[in-house]
Amino acid sequence: MFQFNINPVVNTFQAFYAAEFGAKGIILYSDPADYVIDGEPVYPDGIYLPGTGTQRGTLYIGSGDPQTPGYPSTDTAYRHPEANLTTLPTIPVYPIGYDDASVFLKRMAGNEVIDSWKGNISGITYRYGPGFAEPDDKKRVAMKIFTHNEVATAWNVFGILKGKVEPDRYVIFGNHRDAWGFGAIDPSSGTAAMLEVSKAFGLVKSKHGWRPRRTIMFASWGAEEFGLIGSWEWNEEIAKILNERAVAYLNIDQIVDGRYVVNAESTPNLKKSIYAAAKKVKDPAPSGDRQTVYDTWKARCRDGTNPDGTPVVNTLGSGSDYGPFVQVNGISAMDFRYIADYNTSPQGSSYPTYHSVYDTFYLVDTYYDPGYIYYLAGAQVMAELARDLADSLILPLDASDYAAAVKGYFEQLRDGDIGQRMLQEGLSFAGMGSAVDNFTREAEDFHRRLDEELDLKNVLQVRTYNDQLQKLERAFIDPLGLPDRPLIRHVVLAPSSKDSYASEKFPGIVDAMFDIDNNPDPNKWELVKQQLAVATFIIQSAASTLMEVA
Amino acid sequence: MFQFNINPVVNTFQAFYAAEFGAKGIILYSDPADYVIDGEPVYPDGIYLPGTGTQRGTLYIGSGDPQTPGYPSTDTAYRHPEANLTTLPTIPVYPIGYDDASVFLKRMAGNEVIDSWKGNISGITYRYGPGFAEPDDKKRVAMKIFTHNEVATAWNVFGILKGKVEPDRYVIFGNHRDAWGFGAIDPSSGTAAMLEVSKAFGLVKSKHGWRPRRTIMFASWGAEEFGLIGSWEWNEEIAKILNERAVAYLNIDQIVDGRYVVNAESTPNLKKSIYAAAKKVKDPAPSGDRQTVYDTWKARCRDGTNPDGTPVVNTLGSGSDYGPFVQVNGISAMDFRYIADYNTSPQGSSYPTYHSVYDTFYLVDTYYDPGYIYYLAGAQVMAELARDLADSLILPLDASDYAAAVKGYFEQLRDGDIGQRMLQEGLSFAGMGSAVDNFTREAEDFHRRLDEELDLKNVLQVRTYNDQLQKLERAFIDPLGLPDRPLIRHVVLAPSSKDSYASEKFPGIVDAMFDIDNNPDPNKWELVKQQLAVATFIIQSAASTLMEVA
Repeated sequence: MFQFNINPVVNTFQAFYAAEFGAKGIILYSDPADYVIDGEPVYPDGIYLPGTGTQRGTLYIGSGDPQTPGYPSTDTAYRHPEANLTTLPTIPVYPIGYDDASVFLKRMAGNEVIDSWKGNISGITYRYGPGFAEPDDKKRVAMKIFTHNEVATAWNVFGILKGKVEPDRYVIFGNHRDAWGFGAIDPSSGTAAMLEVSKAFGLVKSKHGWRPRRTIMFASWGAEEFGLIGSWEWNEEIAKILNERAVAYLNIDQIVDGRYVVNAESTPNLKKSIYAAAKKVKDPAPSGDRQTVYDTWKARCRDGTNPDGTPVVNTLGSGSDYGPFVQVNGISAMDFRYIADYNTSPQGSSYPTYHSVYDTFYLVDTYYDPGYIYYLAGAQVMAELARDLADSLILPLDASDYAAAVKGYFEQLRDGDIGQRMLQEGLSFAGMGSAVDNFTREAEDFHRRLDEELDLKNVLQVRTYNDQLQKLERAFIDPLGLPDRPLIRHVVLAPSSKDSYASEKFPGIVDAMFDIDNNPDPNKWELVKQQLAVATFIIQSAASTLMEVA
Repeated sequence: MFQFNINPVVNTFQAFYAAEFGAKGIILYSDPADYVIDGEPVYPDGIYLPGTGTQRGTLYIGSGDPQTPGYPSTDTAYRHPEANLTTLPTIPVYPIGYDDASVFLKRMAGNEVIDSWKGNISGITYRYGPGFAEPDDKKRVAMKIFTHNEVATAWNVFGILKGKVEPDRYVIFGNHRDAWGFGAIDPSSGTAAMLEVSKAFGLVKSKHGWRPRRTIMFASWGAEEFGLIGSWEWNEEIAKILNERAVAYLNIDQIVDGRYVVNAESTPNLKKSIYAAAKKVKDPAPSGDRQTVYDTWKARCRDGTNPDGTPVVNTLGSGSDYGPFVQVNGISAMDFRYIADYNTSPQGSSYPTYHSVYDTFYLVDTYYDPGYIYYLAGAQVMAELARDLADSLILPLDASDYAAAVKGYFEQLRDGDIGQRMLQEGLSFAGMGSAVDNFTREAEDFHRRLDEELDLKNVLQVRTYNDQLQKLERAFIDPLGLPDRPLIRHVVLAPSSKDSYASEKFPGIVDAMFDIDNNPDPNKWELVKQQLAVATFIIQSAASTLMEVA
């Protein structure tokens, strides 16, 4: 999966809303305005989407096996009857290419659409409908859909390199294996990178007898494209083990869908480690100041740089298999890829043949990464990061960076429209502000003690500090979940309830405030107050885990 | 708190049912049939309840602060409006003594009650009512209740003896401090014992510089009598810390409410450690074969002995502060006390002045434990147990005992009326049986590896094995909670939904099956199937935590 302009999650909501308003079916297509640059060649002569290109995607709202919410989909699981599920669309939805779409579009009746709805198929005047224009045109569209639902088996495949000193601490490195078509980029570019990394670790082990301090698990997930099913069910199945032992989850989905610059998303405590790894790897096409992957990242980062000059690392949505690690079990996680030049891609996106039949080996080999030098660089960064997490005496997780990020999210919330509306209603951010300050102070004091007081030769004391670093992410998990989303549990960072590729800060508060002035529920503000209290408690709880242990 | 014949939980349900059927108020009294033995002297001439004796108790269905379910009752907590609470009775309820009760009872109209409802106030014919008998008796009962609800502050007080080697592992020893009256037995007998134990540990530390390997926390809970509020809120507040660090919770409520024999309740993994502690302490009144506390326990155990001759240790209900440790956070726990001779006590109970104003120092000093030799023995057993848990290199928790207990509960369920009814309906216990067998096998293999393969000099390997023993209890926690009781989370052992002093095995299944053949809900069996699947998953999950770590 990957965020694209017209993304499948938006389509999913379209399917639900359209059904609610009486639609019998939906036909989706990818318009050249989003997937082609004027004058640039389309596949196979270039990377852009040809008129026969069709983007597939899941229409399921939710994650994991839809029939086993909250529990793993094992042989003995209780499967909710399909008729009771509210997370699957109730009308047929079918994607087509823009060549086929033009046949319909040129016949459409109604007024011309607003500019932002206009596409770029030549010779088409984009209209709202309904129906076709010519009065004598009796043609209707008949959809004949030959799909069916079935219970199928998906496989997760693991490779485990057992840790030498702390085998019960797991660094998990994962990528999904299923694809909508050939999937050369999504996910096979990531699969190739992960397999090469595992091979490299395997060689160091077999040739030199080396093992990392902690266990590294390589995971090849099944059924990601249907709703992160493989990784989500695994997180549900061995939740107790992961809660205790997981250090971090490193994800690659597409390692290369461009070669302009890298892009990383992560929980805030992993940022510095990603920088450190990127600094160790040579840029595949070095030039002047840009000698390392980090240098180029800093120079070209899509989301700009922080005040200290470091490239911005955004938070994770839930568009790939890191989702369940963060949301089910509170495990720190990251995602990494090479992306195209956001300045010249259509609307900033980078991968026009996404989820189409044209995501092929030829595409990658010819256009995206001839020689696979970006694959290699991306894989090297991930390998360095995995080694750092698995082998450093002190876990390279930064609690202060987490606290700083939370402080930033808090200030954005308080000072933004949502916070101002809450203040206007008489709510106070004083308690939450105190909790944020406590978190900042405890994180700073924790790292000071770590630097000044920790006896690095005392193995159990080292373990104690590491456990505090490792378990910090767990502190943001509320077992009671978010309002209306009981299985999404991270109180600070969750996928947006409106677009699951995107991320929301303090989702409980943001969702409770959604369109509040048009909400007729007389208790609407009670939920806001509750969610403010929950966020305050969770931050305070996170702070408390960093205090001296006794 | 303590289980008594007519216990406050039953009274609580009475209050809800009576209100539902139109009652305006309830008057409760303690009948001499339950609280006095014919011919035996009542307080102050003996231990039995005098006619002016009134038993108090909470009428709240639930645990923890009723206004902050699921979250700690801090300054910034969201407090649900009192009007929305369904866990507090809606009509006044007042307890009186049997002298006052006889004034009403002798006037009662209606048929004579069934034998099991008859009490023992002399000269009374027990009748159902309604109303009074004499046709010209216009008397009505007016209840004038001068209570009110208020938000008050309760205090938990802690004493911490920091561990020398693993300060981040906590053995928690607790007792509540609040009482309905003088509370000489409930809870001050336990408080005295706990303070003496803490003093003893303190002396060994200050005189000899000794510290235990792990941290020992002594906790004095507030507001237990109102619904385990102090301990429950604390478990909610530092849930993340306790999840990571708590080894076990040791509870005393009443250390002595008799002197015939000890009684222990615990999670199954603590049984052997309790035996070991009881074997180390001399019986306060040794005789023949009964030289240790354990010897007398084995000879007189209220619930008999196991096939191997050890005294039966029952599971915990939720009648005291162990409740939140087990139900909120999945922490292994136990409770211990001296009890009276169940053969000669009224209906097997031991403490007639429970929760009355006659629970005084005079009562204890004169009748229950002159010289406090049982106090001492009980405190010594608890001290030995705390030391064992805090100081042993390998945690004295037995996973095989847990597996054996779960196997026993499973077989009781399957072979009992509930299981037979499920089989009749076409459900299968095969999956659950496999999970139970896996748990048994993994527990055995774990202990074999611990005995044969663990290198005791490898501090991190020892920690790994200990962490598996420590965290086993967590595996029984379902964050989604039990049906209709989302904040009660232990899938194997929970307080009965019908009587919170008692314990239920597989409460999700048992509750779903409750009165199922009279349940008009067409989906009633779906819930049973779900709960069978949840129990199966949880047992399998527990088994998986005991496997080799990588």
